[in-house]
Amino acid sequence: MSAFEHVRDLAPQQLYPGFLARAIHGDELTLAVVEIDPGAELPEHHHANEQFGIVIGGSLVFRVGDEERELVPGTTWRIPSEVPHSARAGGDGAVVLDVFSPPRADWQALDASEPQTPRWP
Amino acid sequence: MSAFEHVRDLAPQQLYPGFLARAIHGDELTLAVVEIDPGAELPEHHHANEQFGIVIGGSLVFRVGDEERELVPGTTWRIPSEVPHSARAGGDGAVVLDVFSPPRADWQALDASEPQTPRWP
Repeated sequence: MSAFEHVRDLAPQQLYPGFLARAIHGDELTLAVVEIDPGAELPEHHHANEQFGIVIGGSLVFRVGDEERELVPGTTWRIPSEVPHSARAGGDGAVVLDVFSPPRADWQALDASEPQTPRWP
Repeated sequence: MSAFEHVRDLAPQQLYPGFLARAIHGDELTLAVVEIDPGAELPEHHHANEQFGIVIGGSLVFRVGDEERELVPGTTWRIPSEVPHSARAGGDGAVVLDVFSPPRADWQALDASEPQTPRWP
């Protein structure tokens, strides 16, 4: 297996309606480029995996625990294990990068579609 | 401590000459936006931390183990624990995102300068 993969060659998986992830997994890490449709909402949820991320393009309102903020390109987030979080994309949608440790083993059960042209880059 | 930090507010740390990192750390993860000067070279090294990454802008030649490739925006890498790797930025430099697990505790020892305007976004 190559060490290198372009996001356009990764099979997209729908996490929630309007949230499309292209992910790579390892022993300790999952890294995903996530495309979010305009106005799409991620319902509040939580998981054992620690989660960090950063906005690449567009905007979204993100809530972590009791803190809510509108995020723009270059804003990072840090979500400790089991802390509830939710999000809602802005009017132009968003492209974000999410990383997890331990890896998101639960994503293996999600359907994967054929690779298709990503919104970014 | 807020869950949210913009990359412009993170204190830059020089990893190697020409490699400037702005990082956040957690219990399991480190996420860093790394600016690389045109032509700058990262000497071959290795570490116990698993490392994933993705090119945000610019280009670089990246070597992982015996595999070498020129990377463009949207290309990801996966570096297993202890696998030697090295890199050399292209003529316009590069901005990349690197993530590690376990966190890069060794970066705490690096000098940090005052926040300054990042090259991206």
